[in-house]
Amino acid sequence: MNNFDFRNPTELIFGKGQIAMLSKRIEKGKKILMTYGGGSIFKNGVYDQVKKALDGYDVIEFGGIEANPDYDTLVKAIAICRENKVDMILAVGGGSVVDGTKFIAAGVNFNGDPWDFLIGKAPVCKAIPFASVLTLPATASEMNNGAVISRRATKEKYAFHNPDGFPVFSILDPTVVFSLPKRQISNGIVDIYAHTFEQYLTTSIHTKVMDRWAEGLLQTLVELAPELLKDDRSYDACADYMLTATMGLNGFIAMGVDEDWSTHMIGHELTALHGLDHGVTLAIVFPGVMSVMRKEKRCKLLQYGERVWGIKEGSEDERIESAIRKTDDFFRSVGMKTRLSEHGIGQETIDVIVNRFRERKWNLGEGGIVTPDKVEQILKERL
Amino acid sequence: MNNFDFRNPTELIFGKGQIAMLSKRIEKGKKILMTYGGGSIFKNGVYDQVKKALDGYDVIEFGGIEANPDYDTLVKAIAICRENKVDMILAVGGGSVVDGTKFIAAGVNFNGDPWDFLIGKAPVCKAIPFASVLTLPATASEMNNGAVISRRATKEKYAFHNPDGFPVFSILDPTVVFSLPKRQISNGIVDIYAHTFEQYLTTSIHTKVMDRWAEGLLQTLVELAPELLKDDRSYDACADYMLTATMGLNGFIAMGVDEDWSTHMIGHELTALHGLDHGVTLAIVFPGVMSVMRKEKRCKLLQYGERVWGIKEGSEDERIESAIRKTDDFFRSVGMKTRLSEHGIGQETIDVIVNRFRERKWNLGEGGIVTPDKVEQILKERL
Repeated sequence: MNNFDFRNPTELIFGKGQIAMLSKRIEKGKKILMTYGGGSIFKNGVYDQVKKALDGYDVIEFGGIEANPDYDTLVKAIAICRENKVDMILAVGGGSVVDGTKFIAAGVNFNGDPWDFLIGKAPVCKAIPFASVLTLPATASEMNNGAVISRRATKEKYAFHNPDGFPVFSILDPTVVFSLPKRQISNGIVDIYAHTFEQYLTTSIHTKVMDRWAEGLLQTLVELAPELLKDDRSYDACADYMLTATMGLNGFIAMGVDEDWSTHMIGHELTALHGLDHGVTLAIVFPGVMSVMRKEKRCKLLQYGERVWGIKEGSEDERIESAIRKTDDFFRSVGMKTRLSEHGIGQETIDVIVNRFRERKWNLGEGGIVTPDKVEQILKERL
Repeated sequence: MNNFDFRNPTELIFGKGQIAMLSKRIEKGKKILMTYGGGSIFKNGVYDQVKKALDGYDVIEFGGIEANPDYDTLVKAIAICRENKVDMILAVGGGSVVDGTKFIAAGVNFNGDPWDFLIGKAPVCKAIPFASVLTLPATASEMNNGAVISRRATKEKYAFHNPDGFPVFSILDPTVVFSLPKRQISNGIVDIYAHTFEQYLTTSIHTKVMDRWAEGLLQTLVELAPELLKDDRSYDACADYMLTATMGLNGFIAMGVDEDWSTHMIGHELTALHGLDHGVTLAIVFPGVMSVMRKEKRCKLLQYGERVWGIKEGSEDERIESAIRKTDDFFRSVGMKTRLSEHGIGQETIDVIVNRFRERKWNLGEGGIVTPDKVEQILKERL
């Protein structure tokens, strides 16, 4: 097991009707900036519940935070916080709204251009307090200290982590999952599966207990998927789905392990070049990483196949092949097209992506084992 | 899934050599009370490592905290903190030292008799900051806000929880496990198994993901046990053991589930009356709870048998019987005698315990389903 340092102070307030707890968690008299996105909260009743819970508070609303939250939008919110001496920010939305809010919260006290956080020119500033009411399970941003921010004007997109930038609390009411469109559910399932995989499917067994927990999340997703894709989802399925999403990227399965993240890095390029949904890119790339890196990840692939898919028969090579096929089949079963050609993407795109990684001299994956040559093999395997 | 509220702000600093991090986590110039127990830290090198890391700090030592920490000892430490205006307390030891330190930390600012916390006469006072260097994995006190305090003078023993009483940080160096005597390892394995069981083996399936995580801890313990009972334990086994202990009772597997705890309550009586080790009592009582409560816990017993022990053949009744036998066998395999008669305990003790529960009108277990009549059946089954 690797040495590690774990801390996650976010309070998770989970369950039906918990949005009403807002008034118990935020001190009376506080000035609040309420951030949200494109307006889904007006349709699913969350806006009304939040406003009711915050009756009597001084609330400034800031809507319109985009999917892939944009720097130019967020700096406007920073200015509003400063002008109005906002005490805390309440993000009401999905991962993008929470990510954007993390940037706003860190920017308020920073004397300079907060873009510098993202490009490593300045250490991230201590954030003003912020919290969230989550409406879309997937990213676990509601219980971690990371965020991804885009800048459309310069076509840039970067992640940052803020050591003290965890939400003070996050309210997760699983009934928000009832009304999510199937496309968001499919994307979410693959995204959570991939988050877990990136922290699990590495070159060695670091810790038995974290492996079991990661496998537990994968097994749960496999079990939940058919229920979640029905028109009429049960509360318990929605609750387990929401909890699994949060546990997938809040650090709880990352103790003492190496992490890969090459699938995400390659997937980001596919999104940048072709506008594919994030989840779609992961469903394409992951089986390729499994296939091309099978020698390095052999031990974990065999364990994964046996424990998540019950694969015990055949030679080691056959079992690995079977584990990859099962994973691909699973992604397809939730509605994903898992081949580049199915999205009209061919060799030209592969060349562009591989050249980018070569130019940046980026070796991906745990210990840099996913070299640009490997990226090329991975993408070719997915044509 | 039940609604729940989860929060655990403790920083976990885990791994070989991490005791040296003390000087990075504690501000220079702070006055520290260092608490410890009977002196095992002088033998395993932990005392020297802590003192080296705290070179240059103003440290007052307070040793002699007993297994089952005693009120009369702890109030002396509270007085020392007040007299010396101690800024923080550093517990160096096992669960008893950490538990005792929680009581001291909460007592310092309390204007009255802190025993009142334990008997519910006063709300627990905000604790002064405290942290721990753990030397014995088992109780997870290093990452939760609960403690059990005894008062030998009045033969009383109570638990308390302090909402804001989590350790600021806990340092877990798995090399401390190398030198633990087998008896402590056996007790620890059963204790951690039982902690997990109490949060898992209940009357219904509340959440798939928490079930998977609880099963993951149980599977890990079953896998680790033979390695841990060897004279020469591997670092990775010690590390997984230590991490499993912490994850077993830090709230991470308790989200949205009912909890039982009847085995612990019955076990405490056996310790009080016959001085049996805590782990020994759990190994005796748990198979009895499984057997007598098999109707109520049917669904979970079948799931447990299949997932932890691979029991898939036979009728439901046979599979449950087999799951109970496997559990009993496992406890015996780590060196436990699992029958009352093997400890020279007979019907008289059962009568005393059952009468105590009847007098107190205590119904144990989730939803009070373990009535005094059931306790009687459970203990008779374990003769």
